[in-house]
Amino acid sequence: MDIKSKRIAILSPVAWRTPPRAYGAWETVASNITEGLVARGWKNITLFATKESVTKAKLVGWIERGYEEDKSQIPLVSTCLHISKVMERTHEFDLIHNNFDYLPLTYLSFIKTPMLTTIHGFSDPDILRVYHDHKDTYYVSISDSDRNKDLPYLATVYNGIDLSNLTFRPNPGDKLVHYGRIHLDKGTHLAIEVAKKCDMDLLIAGIIQDQQYFDNFIKPHLNNSSIQYIGPVNPTARDALLKEAYAVLHLNTIPERFGLVLAESMAAGVPVIAMDLGSCREVIADGKTGYLVNNVQEAVEAVAKIDKIDRRKCRRHVEENFTIDCMVRGYEKVYERLFQMEAEKNKK
Amino acid sequence: MDIKSKRIAILSPVAWRTPPRAYGAWETVASNITEGLVARGWKNITLFATKESVTKAKLVGWIERGYEEDKSQIPLVSTCLHISKVMERTHEFDLIHNNFDYLPLTYLSFIKTPMLTTIHGFSDPDILRVYHDHKDTYYVSISDSDRNKDLPYLATVYNGIDLSNLTFRPNPGDKLVHYGRIHLDKGTHLAIEVAKKCDMDLLIAGIIQDQQYFDNFIKPHLNNSSIQYIGPVNPTARDALLKEAYAVLHLNTIPERFGLVLAESMAAGVPVIAMDLGSCREVIADGKTGYLVNNVQEAVEAVAKIDKIDRRKCRRHVEENFTIDCMVRGYEKVYERLFQMEAEKNKK
Repeated sequence: MDIKSKRIAILSPVAWRTPPRAYGAWETVASNITEGLVARGWKNITLFATKESVTKAKLVGWIERGYEEDKSQIPLVSTCLHISKVMERTHEFDLIHNNFDYLPLTYLSFIKTPMLTTIHGFSDPDILRVYHDHKDTYYVSISDSDRNKDLPYLATVYNGIDLSNLTFRPNPGDKLVHYGRIHLDKGTHLAIEVAKKCDMDLLIAGIIQDQQYFDNFIKPHLNNSSIQYIGPVNPTARDALLKEAYAVLHLNTIPERFGLVLAESMAAGVPVIAMDLGSCREVIADGKTGYLVNNVQEAVEAVAKIDKIDRRKCRRHVEENFTIDCMVRGYEKVYERLFQMEAEKNKK
Repeated sequence: MDIKSKRIAILSPVAWRTPPRAYGAWETVASNITEGLVARGWKNITLFATKESVTKAKLVGWIERGYEEDKSQIPLVSTCLHISKVMERTHEFDLIHNNFDYLPLTYLSFIKTPMLTTIHGFSDPDILRVYHDHKDTYYVSISDSDRNKDLPYLATVYNGIDLSNLTFRPNPGDKLVHYGRIHLDKGTHLAIEVAKKCDMDLLIAGIIQDQQYFDNFIKPHLNNSSIQYIGPVNPTARDALLKEAYAVLHLNTIPERFGLVLAESMAAGVPVIAMDLGSCREVIADGKTGYLVNNVQEAVEAVAKIDKIDRRKCRRHVEENFTIDCMVRGYEKVYERLFQMEAEKNKK
């Protein structure tokens, strides 16, 4: 049987629309996997997501709108309804590809269809209790560094990004840029420190995830000229933002799990200066597409040698490793191996 | 087959120990049902609760301590592990008696054992989405007034209370008493208003559920004499508290679902003045064991005629309607009817 005829259920979260209108990292990846599989000729892909989601696959949903977009919903009510409804239909599929964290695992004992779970993050160490309770299933990590040593992973599949809204800019802009979630984890305050030391303008963009952090550590430094916050950016605004970029500063204070921002920036030809924590080392080719640093001083020095980076190499690095097509080819290999393992298991 | 040989799984929440050390309403009821069934000669009762729970039935648990008592836990992680583990063992039982809200319902499609869910409360209207999605199962309401019109209830079974720590006091104390969760819903501020208008002392007890409410509406009225807050009370302290009571004020601002406080007070012989909202009318015999009122003025008038209430009648009303034995006999009838319905269903 042609593997591309296998019936695959992609389980997306219901926090946001799939794909999301603006923010919504897991929904973005679930959408990219779904659309990528369809584009590569898979014939029986079903996306389980909010009812207003948009896909070229078959869409099935029970929740009208994402619970982050319609606050009348209790998140757990929508979550458990969505997940349990998918679980009730697993017999219609050859594989459930779970992109919705740990709750689906608790239904594993009741279903016969194999499940592949992409672990998009460990939001809290305590959620490992559920993962560790379910080792007889299939996991994918989104970077080698984001692995928990006690889980049986089939593979790492890097997130792939949609290049259609990321115009390659051969010529650098004249500003430093920092974008993503505004949160201590992402080191927005360090980006400000670096910009001041380099005496360069800084553009900050993204949703404010921690208002207290923003009010105390970011807002006092903002002005309407050298250090500006421009709010969240959709893909079009992000493309315009990256046009302004001399370099992107991503001075994360905790290990990055994957780092979509790094890949997006390089796709536009913009070198990235990132902390050498977590997966940054896997996404950036140090010295070729940006610089890995350990502190603010090294970041300032890295800004001084950005002109040594070939912006074409940044783009190429993404095209070869971090496109949706790369990701989907990665998942195709994982699916193939999983089906082989299942066939061998059933022989016994 | 003797119905008392049926294998019953009582599913308790894991927010607190079962029975709870202090607060924990649903765990209290689950414990009372479990111990009551054992006391009435049921031979195969299994309590699913935290591992440190205490029961004369068989105890099975996976969560060491309640997530409200050990804040390192993510509540949903403990909740979904606990529930799914119970669901994996349902084939060992003839009936699952769910006292842990709506999440267990989402596993109903995967189990063959019938489930009876006591709905202890609708914490938010949105949770009705899950209940309405599962109408082919069995529900019990804890008062007639706490019913949702679209759900198929088998019966109302009033909560039963443990009389062992509720000493009957034939002689009234000289203070007004208000206890329970300190929250706007329970009308602590109205109790203060009534006490002041009656020029009587007021003792307030219970956990502070809404700190802002307490700080703004309660604390400013406290002194060390006429209006005192004495903190949470365990059963022993509650018994001592009720000894002081001339009457208990329960001026709830929203419909009461059942009202354990009403039953406890009457058990000690203390008449209750309660708002005529929700189940209060079902628990209090108006004019015989207390008074139903509609506002502060009526409550003040009710205090003036408390001496017309026969405290022996208060106690007897509880003994006849709201003991653990009453509750368990109620559930025995429900179980019996449920098993009959299942037998008829299986005949078809």
